[in-house]
Amino acid sequence: MRIVFHDLTVEPEPWLAELRRAFPQATVQSWQPGAPAADYALVWAPPQQLLDEQPQLKALFNIAAGVDALLKLKLPAAVPVFRLDDAGMAVQMAEYVCQAVIRFYRELDAVEADSRRGLWQQRAPRLRQDFAVGVMGLGVLGQRVLGALHAFGYPLRGWSRSARTLPGVQTFWGAAQWPDFLRGSRILVNLLPLTPETDKILDRRALMSLPVGGYLINVARGRHLVDEDLLAVLDSGHLAGALLDVFQQEPLPADHPFWHHPRITVTPHTSARTLRRESLAQIIGKIVALEAGALPQSLGGWVRTEVGY
Amino acid sequence: MRIVFHDLTVEPEPWLAELRRAFPQATVQSWQPGAPAADYALVWAPPQQLLDEQPQLKALFNIAAGVDALLKLKLPAAVPVFRLDDAGMAVQMAEYVCQAVIRFYRELDAVEADSRRGLWQQRAPRLRQDFAVGVMGLGVLGQRVLGALHAFGYPLRGWSRSARTLPGVQTFWGAAQWPDFLRGSRILVNLLPLTPETDKILDRRALMSLPVGGYLINVARGRHLVDEDLLAVLDSGHLAGALLDVFQQEPLPADHPFWHHPRITVTPHTSARTLRRESLAQIIGKIVALEAGALPQSLGGWVRTEVGY
Repeated sequence: MRIVFHDLTVEPEPWLAELRRAFPQATVQSWQPGAPAADYALVWAPPQQLLDEQPQLKALFNIAAGVDALLKLKLPAAVPVFRLDDAGMAVQMAEYVCQAVIRFYRELDAVEADSRRGLWQQRAPRLRQDFAVGVMGLGVLGQRVLGALHAFGYPLRGWSRSARTLPGVQTFWGAAQWPDFLRGSRILVNLLPLTPETDKILDRRALMSLPVGGYLINVARGRHLVDEDLLAVLDSGHLAGALLDVFQQEPLPADHPFWHHPRITVTPHTSARTLRRESLAQIIGKIVALEAGALPQSLGGWVRTEVGY
Repeated sequence: MRIVFHDLTVEPEPWLAELRRAFPQATVQSWQPGAPAADYALVWAPPQQLLDEQPQLKALFNIAAGVDALLKLKLPAAVPVFRLDDAGMAVQMAEYVCQAVIRFYRELDAVEADSRRGLWQQRAPRLRQDFAVGVMGLGVLGQRVLGALHAFGYPLRGWSRSARTLPGVQTFWGAAQWPDFLRGSRILVNLLPLTPETDKILDRRALMSLPVGGYLINVARGRHLVDEDLLAVLDSGHLAGALLDVFQQEPLPADHPFWHHPRITVTPHTSARTLRRESLAQIIGKIVALEAGALPQSLGGWVRTEVGY
């Protein structure tokens, strides 16, 4: 068995070592142009050449939940593609989004800023029922986030491409229900996959549809958001704040106005980090199952250049 | 029926108006020295005189969860005392503690401080299993906090005066198990009632028993904590940070070193605010039940100057 690895955002050695421990008979290497064809490839944002040089690939593993980097490429026909479907990322996303929602609702940034200036200043409690949280994208991450938010009693809303039912969540779907979904979401959380349909979905019109005093939390992809529209809507006073973890260009360029905007908090794509151990456990488990004859679909694999949300 | 109200921390009129709506036949007034004896008293930190002038009191309602202000006084004999046992406070406490735990574990204050300086700086993820959260006090608030933390997968521990079993929580009890409880609690959350036994429980010895790099979240009472011991333990580098919402004197005096300590965040007793509507709904419901002949014990009333935790 031959396994190739390609992820320029991490140190490859620990990944290769763990794969070699799991498959001592296999050849496990970082991909190089012209390397022998592999049976399995683990990739994040690979070059097209890597895919083009794989005539015998049994499966392609995307080392992330989001597959937008793969969808930009021509995928080898009939090769099943697997993305990480949790691997410790959903719980991170749940905690990141929950702390953000709580801090917006409870105005804790302002409370702590007062404290740093030595001011003891209580604020009038706001009404929980005025703080509906609307989650865009109801996959593994969106469902986990909504499940965690449930403990705090906010009205919960969810929007997805196709109809879904979730307990305790008012769900909306498709383009027809998009305006209604936005209108009632005081805090909007973006967890959509990036596809041609969702590219720039958070534009001026969408943001102005949120309630006055609303908040945006973007933890999906920077390209979902039209940067200058967010700035205009914040500066107009319509929205009260935004927490942004993802950007069109990462690292966020030093001269980008998001860095120092008083109503924007920037974090460095840190909401849900890929955890090596959990990710490899999931991928290794799937390779073992495939080698034992499991059907790729039964393990969550798919072969079309399309992804549900 | 005669109802008196005494809470110098709030505007009394909305409270009186709501009580009058609920009991149109009753006389509802703010307490004044020498006022006629009442059937029910709603109080927060009342003077002893208020209690001494109530020969016919059927019940005393404490407008808070913590009864330490009452326990300092001589309570009228055989009069059942009720504290708010949730009234919208437990969910607030859960959200306050969860956001604090998440921010400590994920180092979000440091991440956001980097961002404010224009630095894109990811940090190595820390291991969730190293971040056991230990909750002191397993009453309504402690249980609700632990229930909410459960969604985030931290190892959970709880300590109480007498033995308790909670699903998914490693419980400890009494003085004998106190050192073991502390030793494994990377993040310590104090939700104890303030009693002579728990006064100054968070002293140098207790804080030094926490793991190196530990954190303290105090949301109970300022007198649980020996201020100078916390400062010494933080300055020694043993603990990494503290979030304090309650203080021996409130507002926290302007010259107190907590205000500007780099590892301490101060908030102005805002973790769980008394909500008028929810509190009155609970108290009014109990008065209605008592008038209909319900036993005080069946409604959570107690008559001894002792409170379980």
